[in-house]
Parts: sequence; C-alpha cells; structure tokens
Amino acid sequence: MTSNPIYCSREDCAAMDAADPLAHARTRFVLPDDIVYLDGNSLGPLPAKTPARLTETVAHEWGKDLIRSWNAHDWIGMPQRIGARIAPLIGAHADEVIVADSTSVNLFRLAGAAIRHMAPRQVIVSERGNFPTDLYVLQGLAKLLDGAIELRVVAPEDIPGAITSDTALVALTHIHYKTGAIHDMSALTRAAHDAGALILWDLSHSAGAVELFLDRDDVDLAIGCGYKYLNGGPGAPAFVHVARRLQEKLDPPLSGWMGHAAPFEFGDEYRPARGILRQLCGTPPVLGMAALAEGIATFDGIAMGEVRRKSMALGNLLIDLVDARCREFDLACRREAGERGSQVTLRHRHGYAIMQALIDRGVIGDFRAPDVLRFGLTPLYTRYVDIWDAVDRLRAIMDDGSWRDERYRTRAAVT
Amino acid sequence: MTSNPIYCSREDCAAMDAADPLAHARTRFVLPDDIVYLDGNSLGPLPAKTPARLTETVAHEWGKDLIRSWNAHDWIGMPQRIGARIAPLIGAHADEVIVADSTSVNLFRLAGAAIRHMAPRQVIVSERGNFPTDLYVLQGLAKLLDGAIELRVVAPEDIPGAITSDTALVALTHIHYKTGAIHDMSALTRAAHDAGALILWDLSHSAGAVELFLDRDDVDLAIGCGYKYLNGGPGAPAFVHVARRLQEKLDPPLSGWMGHAAPFEFGDEYRPARGILRQLCGTPPVLGMAALAEGIATFDGIAMGEVRRKSMALGNLLIDLVDARCREFDLACRREAGERGSQVTLRHRHGYAIMQALIDRGVIGDFRAPDVLRFGLTPLYTRYVDIWDAVDRLRAIMDDGSWRDERYRTRAAVT
Repeated sequence: MTSNPIYCSREDCAAMDAADPLAHARTRFVLPDDIVYLDGNSLGPLPAKTPARLTETVAHEWGKDLIRSWNAHDWIGMPQRIGARIAPLIGAHADEVIVADSTSVNLFRLAGAAIRHMAPRQVIVSERGNFPTDLYVLQGLAKLLDGAIELRVVAPEDIPGAITSDTALVALTHIHYKTGAIHDMSALTRAAHDAGALILWDLSHSAGAVELFLDRDDVDLAIGCGYKYLNGGPGAPAFVHVARRLQEKLDPPLSGWMGHAAPFEFGDEYRPARGILRQLCGTPPVLGMAALAEGIATFDGIAMGEVRRKSMALGNLLIDLVDARCREFDLACRREAGERGSQVTLRHRHGYAIMQALIDRGVIGDFRAPDVLRFGLTPLYTRYVDIWDAVDRLRAIMDDGSWRDERYRTRAAVT
Repeated sequence: MTSNPIYCSREDCAAMDAADPLAHARTRFVLPDDIVYLDGNSLGPLPAKTPARLTETVAHEWGKDLIRSWNAHDWIGMPQRIGARIAPLIGAHADEVIVADSTSVNLFRLAGAAIRHMAPRQVIVSERGNFPTDLYVLQGLAKLLDGAIELRVVAPEDIPGAITSDTALVALTHIHYKTGAIHDMSALTRAAHDAGALILWDLSHSAGAVELFLDRDDVDLAIGCGYKYLNGGPGAPAFVHVARRLQEKLDPPLSGWMGHAAPFEFGDEYRPARGILRQLCGTPPVLGMAALAEGIATFDGIAMGEVRRKSMALGNLLIDLVDARCREFDLACRREAGERGSQVTLRHRHGYAIMQALIDRGVIGDFRAPDVLRFGLTPLYTRYVDIWDAVDRLRAIMDDGSWRDERYRTRAAVT
C-alpha cells in the first residue's frame, strides 16, 4: 500500500494499551475472550450493566408495577431523558434530542417536515452512494408527495455546486458507511444556509465515534442510530435532533399521540406538543430504550475528544500494520486520520470470502459489497493488541489460503 | 343500572374458576399476588417465559454471538416469523402479517400507500372519537399531502352513508378503546368494497381479545398493537396486515432498506421486496421482538373462540355484580356481550379519583377522560374471583369514601 511502512510489534501495542487513558472503559462491556470485535460500528457489544438493567425493567417495572410504571418509573419520559443524554455526545442542547423509532423512519419524519416548511422549494440534495436506506426513504417520500419533491443525488464532490436557490433540504450522511469519508459539517451546513436551505445530517456512523458540534455548526436537523457506537443493542431505537429555533416551526408528518400537546385528553384534533416532544409518534419502546440508556452510559465521564484521539491512533496502527504485512489489500479509506471516520476499510476482490474466514478465526469485521472489508474501531473496548492480532490473523489466512474454502463462497442473508 | 340484577357469590365465582377450561393458562404469567389486574387491554402482564427469553437474547445472542446473530439466530427473519404467529390469532394467512414499528407508524404506512393506490379518489372515512392517534396520524398524512386527502370523520352511525364513490379508504378501529363497541367487520368491509374503496382495520383492542376472520371477511389492510392483549411488553413492536392480493400493488411510503428486494446489495435505487416484507423499513428492534414472541406464545394451543367465550362471561359477571352492588355507576358499554369487546366500562363523574383509589386497593383498571372507568378482561389470566374481588373493593371504596382523599385529585402524566 505504501512503500514505507512503519512496523510495530505486539509488545509495542501492549505498551500502548498500558498507557491508554481509555483502557479502563473496556470493563464496561461483556466481550467474549476469544474474539477481536471490530464490528462495533455495525452492532455495539453488550454493555456489562445492560442485563441487570433489563432484568430490573422487565421483572420489577413491568412484572410488578405493571401499567403504573408509565408514571412510577417515568417510562413516559424515557424518550426525552435518554435523548438529553445523547445530546452532549453530539454537541447539541439537551432539549434538542429525543429518542424515537428507527433511523429510517426518523429521516422520513424530518425530511417530510422540512420539505413542507420550505415550500415552494422542492429540491432535496443528497449523495450518490449514500447509505442506501437514506436514499430509499427519500425516494419513498418523493413518490408519496408525487411531484412535490425533486431528488438531486450527486457525487460527493458535486454536492456544494448542487445546493442552489431551489434547494429545500440537503440530506447527507456525515461519515460514509463504506469508505469512512467525513463530510465537512461546518462548511456544508454554511453552504446550505447560504443558499437558504435546511440541512439534515445522518449521524449513524458519527455519534459516539467522532467529536460533533451540532450547536456550534448551526445544524438544523439530524438523525442517528442507537445500535452502533452507542451500544444500545440490536435494532435499538434511534434519535432525532431538531435545533431549538426550528422546533415550533416544523409540522411532524408522523403526528401520533405521543407528540400531542395533551395526549391523555384523548381529543380528536392533533395539536403538536411544544419543543422536541412533537417528534414522537407512537408509544415508546421501553425495553429497547432501557438497553439504549445503558449503551449511552458506557460513555459516562469520557470526553469524545479522547475517544476520537484513540480511534485515530487505532486506525493508523491498523493501516501501518497492513502496509507492512498485507500488501495484497488496497486501502479503501483515507490514509489521513483526520479525514477518516472511526473505521478502516480495505479492498480485495475476494473480500467476502476473506472476511468470512477471518470471522472464523475470531476477528469480526464485516463485508460491504462488492469488495470492501470493513473494520470498526471503537476506543472504549478495542485495544492496540486487538489490532495487532487482527492483522496477524489476516496474514495467516492469506498465507494458509483458508479463505479459499468452499463454505466461504455463498453469501449469507446478512453480510 | 338494571332493576333486576343477578347476584353471584364469591363461592359461585370460585366454582366457575374450578370449571374453567382456560384456568391453566394463568401460570403462563407473572402476576403480583395482591393485585387484581384489569388493565391487560392497556399493558399485558409479564409472561412467565419472557425474562429467560430476554436473558438468552441479550446474554447469549447479543453478548456472545454479537453481529453474527443476524444470521445465526435469524434476527433478520423475526418480523416475518413473529408476524406469521400473529396471523392465526386474527384469521389471516401467515404471509399476510409482519411485525414493524408502532401502530401509529403502521397506520401512516398503510394509509399513505392506500391513498396513492386509489388516486384520484382522495377521501378517507374515519370515525369521530376514534382512538386519537388514528385521527392524528391521518391528519398528519393529509397535511403532508397538502390537499390530496379529504378526511371525512363522522359519527359511528353515519359511517356506512359516508362511504361513497369518492372514498379511497375507510380507516376504522374495530373495537372502540373507550366504549368497547364492536364494528361489524364483515358488513363494513363489504360496504367499502361495494363503493370501490379499500378498508383498513385497527385491531389494537381486538387481536388476542376476540375472534377475527380477516381472510373470510376479505379485509384489505389491518394494523394492531403488540403490548395489549398480545402481552408483548411496554411499547412492543406493532403489526401490519396486507391481504395477499394487494401486497404487490401498494408502494410503501416508508421505503427503508429492510423492505428492499436486496438490502445487502447496497444499491442506490429502491426496489420493493416481494410480499409482506416490503412493509419493513428500518432495522428490526430485536429485544422488543423477542419479548413479543413470548407474549404471543401465551396463546399457544388456545382457541380464540374459547378466549372470547370466557371474556364474555367475565364481562357479564362484572356487569351483573355492578348492577347488584354499585348502582351509582352507569354502564358505558353495551350490555349485550356479543356487542362488547373484551372490556367493561363504567361512568361516574368522579371516575378519575375513584379509579386511583381502586388502584391503591390493588384493583388495577384505568381511566379514560372525561369520566370513564375501564376494566380490561383478559381470559388467559383473569379469574372469576378476580372480578368478584374487584367489585367488592369498588363497593368498599364507595362506602368508606376513601376516593375523596386529596391525593386522588391531581391527574398523573399518564392516566
């Protein structure tokens, strides 16, 4: 990959772990002994406190207090309470974030509200190769609105030029799921505002992974995922961010009872609640939210700047080791750490089979079509020696040819 | 309430329990000893097997197998697998039901798809006093579509007359949340079809409560709740039904990656999956779905006809006992069991305070504004003696005046 790799021994890595100010956070997770888990960007591992929290929620709150728990244990307040704890991780105010539904549904919710608010502007700018569900959701919204939306989906380098006076909304994913490329949130938000447009950032690969400054950068809208870097569990509820200045101006298209000003008056007419609360729709998923609360708690007392510093160091180490030992792979992400999200991606035409063989050797990353091997770097629990071991096992698989085994040829349902 | 009540002693009730063919099902639940729980129509109690199932899902599947569980434990198939188990409870085919999102979001999803499919027809007929979120969601959809929908919300007796040649969709709740009144699903579905319209039934107070025949009645679309009679836990995922003949014809407005024909190809263009699967949008909430699976399992081997028979008997008993002993209450539901859902509602101008006092005496029902005391009847775990005890304690509260206590005057957040 480069002609001048820097080699680093396993002992060097162990020394880096010994000096790591985040090393203590690893005990906040349950991690199988024999596994190097480099897929926390797809599904964060189980936090150590989550099982007890779920037992409490299930056995005590649901089992004993039953329906009374909506008040007694403030289940009704969970979306706001947990949202307020996500806010500092993304540089937003506590009253600007709420937990609700899925990332896909939340994109629909905010894009639908934005397009109506910005009428007669009707262009939504997005990126070709964006995470697919983002494009699919915008396509579904456009079809539903039957001519009231024009989608302008362009290559990343063409985004600034595509934001014009007819643009209602710029809807981008901050960090690319496959390449890890980072958009300049500050500059693109300014570009959108300069054109009189709103901007919506999908933070699925950013929240809990990099430092974010939504308030400083004057971001209008954002959404994000609870089950990746936030460790909320499989299919965890997602989050919604709306800047204070917009909260009363946007009509939520998914206007359900939980976003009503007075849901328990049971009136026939929708009246939106004040503030971020109006983004709610149906009854909050209590079990998923209890798990998400513990996922977010794994960041307690830890500054995102510290997380980011270690993430970059882990990525640099992985790239250096691959440069030195696994030259048959191409780098599919930026070499410069500041331009790369919390992941490293490699390219190999047999990427699928190689990743399956690597998983069988206890190094879990993932594969993204057509040829990308993706390694998530999650500083709360990933050690420098884990990176060393991962590359060592990758080398072993390439040397012994085990990835050529028949069983690695057929793609599984979820890759 | 009537002049001719039939009295029944606690011993009579115990004898009815001894002869009850569903008595054995009570052990399928964890129920606090000191509580008579008549609110399973709002939140079903904890099934006995749910804690172990969640521990397995959390500690083993998530904790040990991590991301691999999407394949290894078929997390990815949960929405269809659990949907298929709801199907027989509602008289539908296994491939017509899928678990997704919340009831509110599902109503938006199907109503949005239906209105586009039925264009240029643009009227949605619904019922005044419908469960509020149903009306709110339709209002939000109408506002989003800005003139493409006319909502025609009429009194229940005016529904048949409101279904005309301009009607795209009739969206009704089968059993009324407050009065328990049951719509004639067969007749109203026929009326919708005769006018060339589609019909969508909200089964939130029906699924697991009464016998349903969606296939026989030629129902087009339905939605329902997982956390009431289905015992799926607080905020459980909801379900979606689409008749086979419509599955390929409706474009889902919430078109996310999980409803894509090939989500893991990560292409830029949405292509809907075949069949019911296209109704999915975001990543399935695995913890909530694991709990829902155990909730549905509480119906294993039990015929809904048997459930309904006992439900009617419990309701008749409650009404007879109130007639005999609590004449200060008015009946707010139908006296004829066949016209009443699985609940009994009473009316009293001090209903809120009385219900709070009753809850403090260990009888949990709920209150619905402005004056309705609601008692859910859930035959899998409610005994005839429970009904007797509930009325006995209601009598005691009225006699000792404890409901007049100061603390029962202020309404809690959730009632």
